[in-house]
Amino acid sequence: MDKYLREEEPGVTERSGTAWGKSHDVIVHQSEPFNAESSLAVLVQQPVTSTEDFYVRNHGPVPELDPRLWRLSVDGMVDRPLEMSLEDLQNRFEHHEVVATLQCAGNRRSGLAKVHDIPGHPWGPGATSTATWTGARLTDVLAAAGAQNSAQHVAFEAPDVAPEATPPQRFGASIPIAKATGDEVLLAWGMNGRPLPAVHGAPVRAIVPGFIGARSVKWIDRVSVQADPSQNFFQSIAYRLLPPGIDPYSAPPGDGLALGPLTVNSAILAPDDGAVVPAGRTAVTGYALSGDDRGIARVDVSVDGGQSWLQAELDEPPSPWAWTPWRITLELPPGDVEITARAWDTSAAVQPEHEAHLWNPKGYFNNAWSRIHLTATERQGMSA
Amino acid sequence: MDKYLREEEPGVTERSGTAWGKSHDVIVHQSEPFNAESSLAVLVQQPVTSTEDFYVRNHGPVPELDPRLWRLSVDGMVDRPLEMSLEDLQNRFEHHEVVATLQCAGNRRSGLAKVHDIPGHPWGPGATSTATWTGARLTDVLAAAGAQNSAQHVAFEAPDVAPEATPPQRFGASIPIAKATGDEVLLAWGMNGRPLPAVHGAPVRAIVPGFIGARSVKWIDRVSVQADPSQNFFQSIAYRLLPPGIDPYSAPPGDGLALGPLTVNSAILAPDDGAVVPAGRTAVTGYALSGDDRGIARVDVSVDGGQSWLQAELDEPPSPWAWTPWRITLELPPGDVEITARAWDTSAAVQPEHEAHLWNPKGYFNNAWSRIHLTATERQGMSA
Repeated sequence: MDKYLREEEPGVTERSGTAWGKSHDVIVHQSEPFNAESSLAVLVQQPVTSTEDFYVRNHGPVPELDPRLWRLSVDGMVDRPLEMSLEDLQNRFEHHEVVATLQCAGNRRSGLAKVHDIPGHPWGPGATSTATWTGARLTDVLAAAGAQNSAQHVAFEAPDVAPEATPPQRFGASIPIAKATGDEVLLAWGMNGRPLPAVHGAPVRAIVPGFIGARSVKWIDRVSVQADPSQNFFQSIAYRLLPPGIDPYSAPPGDGLALGPLTVNSAILAPDDGAVVPAGRTAVTGYALSGDDRGIARVDVSVDGGQSWLQAELDEPPSPWAWTPWRITLELPPGDVEITARAWDTSAAVQPEHEAHLWNPKGYFNNAWSRIHLTATERQGMSA
Repeated sequence: MDKYLREEEPGVTERSGTAWGKSHDVIVHQSEPFNAESSLAVLVQQPVTSTEDFYVRNHGPVPELDPRLWRLSVDGMVDRPLEMSLEDLQNRFEHHEVVATLQCAGNRRSGLAKVHDIPGHPWGPGATSTATWTGARLTDVLAAAGAQNSAQHVAFEAPDVAPEATPPQRFGASIPIAKATGDEVLLAWGMNGRPLPAVHGAPVRAIVPGFIGARSVKWIDRVSVQADPSQNFFQSIAYRLLPPGIDPYSAPPGDGLALGPLTVNSAILAPDDGAVVPAGRTAVTGYALSGDDRGIARVDVSVDGGQSWLQAELDEPPSPWAWTPWRITLELPPGDVEITARAWDTSAAVQPEHEAHLWNPKGYFNNAWSRIHLTATERQGMSA
């Protein structure tokens, strides 16, 4: 397992905030490269996450780019290669807003790491946030460049260099052409009505709603239209789902599943895991999210470990590309209780039960049933 | 639970065959309406199932239609409504072949029925078969009719009337426009190179690969382009995924999830469940299948109840719209053993563990881990 440790070692997990404009509520997993998870207590209050509370997953140092010098090239299987400044991009293409949830492939890794060690940041369910993104549609840019009909993938590149990438290389990713030509995919320069901050990819990043966050490449400076997926380390080696017992760095490119769409998942955001609450009526709230264009059909909540289920009330998601907030009021008797949640998506996929059966060498896609433990105490003036 | 029994009572499950041209191997669940499941031993031998071995799920008597008198109407949100004979359909549109697996939403219901009673046929994993279908693309027919841009759904109707439908009505279904305009969806008149047999929908049926079999409407005579899903009993009432405790017939239309795409699933086809086999090297084979355009990424096999997994070898599926046959050779020591299989699809969805957690009032979408029990015996001339 030693070879797995080539990914950067997680730093001290602390609430520090203020670096890169983040609030004091974010949970910092690593200061350089900067990696921070949103506070569950803050997420639950906001259908759209404020920029200062939005999670950050970086692989290398933040490139602080001068927007006046930034250029985007569009090349590969196109009839008219483009090279554009930020002004060109903003002047030439219609502006669109998409409210989209991003989620790190390692979201909820901490649950898998309890089964068996996994290197990498021990993300809880807060590597997930929602923002309003403003930009040009990638499909409009591809049309302007004359993307050829035989193209199958669109690759992204950016100038950040991660220490973990072998051989040393810029960050990259790719998405299938069918996704790249969806109206929801943006080259975004705005986040929550303001210019994109440096830590989130200024001046321009890709936004690929419904896919793992790693495909929403920050600081993007190149779009390539291709016959094949990107050969970049972060597409062909990292971010693969592999069976236990396989070394993720020596398994040949093409082995395993290069991650694209997210899987159906949910989290209990409040109360906090481990909280002591008064017995009686208790509000439980969370989010549910699925991959690509799949919405949430149902969220089940259990107080008996999944023997029986209650139906949570679903809020309207802030957009078809965003999470579904949910809520339920439970009547808790005094004592210890485990609360379990699971979501079903509109393709009828449901979260599987146990993290033990989902463990994988890189700790991706933990979508096992969510569980918190509460202690309900007698309320003042009441007796059992 | 009595109200659930409005669905037709299952008849005697027997191997009879020869009715409707079926082989002696099919397992007949009901003779009228005719419902029969493919033999697992036969399925495993054929990447594409022969017509005589293909499963049949009918809701009412087979309408034996005169192909010379058959007409298809295309109406609703179209600029040019059509009415076509079979000759019109065959002469006006390009002919296409698609190898596609169909699967009944009730496939593997027998496993759920062991958890808690469910009315309806106790299908095993043999309500799944693959054929080569020949016909016109639905998208070409929709284009000829001038389907309007604001259309959201395409509904199908057929003359068969099921006793269970309330109020009495013809069979119907609908699919989203994005699916209906996919190249894989056919109005098919051919099956495995021969004219479609009556029991499979002659003269023409819809083929909707990757969706539950009920959306591949047989004996189709009407295609309607609509803003909303079909209000037909089989779209709005039956074939919904509902939580336990809900009466599926009184729950209002719109409640629950009207089933469309299949979920990721697999079956062990050989050896037979309960077989006695010689200890030592044992070949285990099966199929895996997911919904819509999702392929199979991986099949895991366990001999210790899921504590550890081996990787099955995947055959190339006969088409992107067909199942993935898989195989593995296990070394079995003498004694009783449970063999477990689970599939992952290309969206990283995996089969959930337990049927107990998937039980639903109509018994749909059992995609829990597949399990068989074997007894491995000492081989002649060997001692322990």
